[in-house]
Amino acid sequence: MKKAASIPADSVGVVETQHITLFQDDPLPLDCGATLSPVRVAYETYGKLNEKKNNVILVCHALSGSAHAAGYHSGESRKPGWWETCIGPGKPFDTNKFFIVCSNNLGGCYGTTGPSSTDPATGKPFGLRFPLITIGDMARVQKALVDALGIKQLLSVAGGSMGGMLALQWALDYPQMVKSSLIIAATPRLSAQNIAFNAVARQAILMDPHFNGGDYDSTSLPENGLALARMMAHITYLSEEGLHQKFGRRLQDREKLSYGFENDFAIESYLHYQGSSFVKRFDANTYLYITKAMDYFDPFSDPETTARRLKEVTARFLVTSFDTDWRFDTRRSKEMVRILNWHHKDVTFQEFSSPHGHDSFLLDIPHYKQTLATFLNRLYLEYCQRGG
Amino acid sequence: MKKAASIPADSVGVVETQHITLFQDDPLPLDCGATLSPVRVAYETYGKLNEKKNNVILVCHALSGSAHAAGYHSGESRKPGWWETCIGPGKPFDTNKFFIVCSNNLGGCYGTTGPSSTDPATGKPFGLRFPLITIGDMARVQKALVDALGIKQLLSVAGGSMGGMLALQWALDYPQMVKSSLIIAATPRLSAQNIAFNAVARQAILMDPHFNGGDYDSTSLPENGLALARMMAHITYLSEEGLHQKFGRRLQDREKLSYGFENDFAIESYLHYQGSSFVKRFDANTYLYITKAMDYFDPFSDPETTARRLKEVTARFLVTSFDTDWRFDTRRSKEMVRILNWHHKDVTFQEFSSPHGHDSFLLDIPHYKQTLATFLNRLYLEYCQRGG
Repeated sequence: MKKAASIPADSVGVVETQHITLFQDDPLPLDCGATLSPVRVAYETYGKLNEKKNNVILVCHALSGSAHAAGYHSGESRKPGWWETCIGPGKPFDTNKFFIVCSNNLGGCYGTTGPSSTDPATGKPFGLRFPLITIGDMARVQKALVDALGIKQLLSVAGGSMGGMLALQWALDYPQMVKSSLIIAATPRLSAQNIAFNAVARQAILMDPHFNGGDYDSTSLPENGLALARMMAHITYLSEEGLHQKFGRRLQDREKLSYGFENDFAIESYLHYQGSSFVKRFDANTYLYITKAMDYFDPFSDPETTARRLKEVTARFLVTSFDTDWRFDTRRSKEMVRILNWHHKDVTFQEFSSPHGHDSFLLDIPHYKQTLATFLNRLYLEYCQRGG
Repeated sequence: MKKAASIPADSVGVVETQHITLFQDDPLPLDCGATLSPVRVAYETYGKLNEKKNNVILVCHALSGSAHAAGYHSGESRKPGWWETCIGPGKPFDTNKFFIVCSNNLGGCYGTTGPSSTDPATGKPFGLRFPLITIGDMARVQKALVDALGIKQLLSVAGGSMGGMLALQWALDYPQMVKSSLIIAATPRLSAQNIAFNAVARQAILMDPHFNGGDYDSTSLPENGLALARMMAHITYLSEEGLHQKFGRRLQDREKLSYGFENDFAIESYLHYQGSSFVKRFDANTYLYITKAMDYFDPFSDPETTARRLKEVTARFLVTSFDTDWRFDTRRSKEMVRILNWHHKDVTFQEFSSPHGHDSFLLDIPHYKQTLATFLNRLYLEYCQRGG
């Protein structure tokens, strides 16, 4: 990994997304009963796999993320990976110590098989003929990737928001393989309010006249619907306090109210910008599938199954939340902690103070980063350095 | 007012919406600089005006309300007015004592002049040619109605949500006329988050292909956009706790997940129902104008003007909020109380406990109703009964 002059020294530098094709002979079984074959997976790695192959951390992305978690795709690029704040030399996910793997989730639109992929049965994009997927299915694909890379053990599975849900899923589904789960700003299940917001977002997409039952092409995209979905979701990613501090009732490039339907307030312009930039980089069908997978996530719904599965779990858990996150607030994290505690799991919980709401997990917050670093470093000392 | 057998004894019974045409000779001046003439106003009254005409309470409705605050439009109707819980014989707004007036707000779609009214200049509906209106303009029209009814003094101006904003506006604009303001679940200004939700709701309407720049007709309405706006707003009217209690993750008429894009969860069906029933009764242009009027409301923005105006105010204030209301939460009410206190106004503040969020102000909550009743009854004893 070479570094261009413009790239900060604490970045992993210029990185490339790699691709692998899995489930070619044995199709991927899905929770809904359908199968998929083949499944292409986009992934990136940072740092170096040690000889014992025991320094691996799987990083899981959230709703709109990609395999590009750290570094830059070119020396000229100004936009680093989505977790550049936390992954790199000397950062919590220290690439001098760890080998980091991040893949685009199943159903995604950044290189992994999803609704915009070609359906081998028809030669056309799947669209809504793509089967419904779950967080468990996503983990199953990640497991196949890790297997293909010759990795037998994960020092940690880590993620924020839906990435945290994936980290929990991993600990439950592959208990022998996971040394720790780092679950940030997540929830063991979506609340009625969470589902409600997802339902309205999906409705916005489904009702867009360009949606065409999911069979749109690049010349006619359901941009309005997807932009609306993103604008609304974006409100839930930020805290009321954060919005107040950043925008308040400040007017946008004007001295007086417009007395018209323009963007009078800065917050309106900001949201419109968020919506219109999102549609350039994200697929509407993927938005539908991923929100549904989140709605379905509920690994602790049945107490008996929970007890049986948690009995096998050996992972150490770090569960963290942010005090102004109202999408998945601290009570959701505590719900998870309570269940893990009840079943005698090794859980550390920490709530951090930040005005930035749900999005805090992506930001450069010293206390938060220090806590991740300490947790991961202890694992490193225990498992990797000892005689390593 | 006769009562049909099916109508409860504590209802005002069968009522009729009345209409009056105002500003025929002298046009209504608006804050935006434009004028309107004539202005038709739909209103209802309950109870009896006493001889001294000093037992009048003006009740102000919220975003989607109408003049029909209490009673039934027919003996067969099952749907009472929007504040039936609080208005009627023996209720807080006791029609045995008070003469209640409620009018549809300017810009509305229930009989008062608004964007769906005929523009006298073109003979066609105004649509987006209707001028932008403010909460102050709405109060100005109510003032003209009250004048036309021969009423010189209001014992109280009362309302919840935007109705509470109107109650505050009245105390400031007509300080000699208002004995008290009852401001429930309201705010002295919308926050950035409030404006953000309104902006997304408007975007949903403006982007609907049937919106047609506001020139739609009944054969082709922007129903999807308006339904989306309502679904999203509805989430903000209810509390997370309330949604959890009422819906949780309960499935809708099914034993198992659909693994499709149907309404798996009861909350989804409920929201879709809320959206589709709203479009049958509300006008999309009105939604645009009223949300904009709310965005603009900010009577205390300038400290000097605030001091000057509050000096004239003689009204007694009752400000109330609900602990799970996150649309206009308790901190917003307290902001208002702080300013009124600072300027030596007579303010009582009360927060009520209710799991039902913003919508609580419409519900039958004993402690809340008792507080309204006590406040209004004291005014009655002081002003109406004493030698009355």
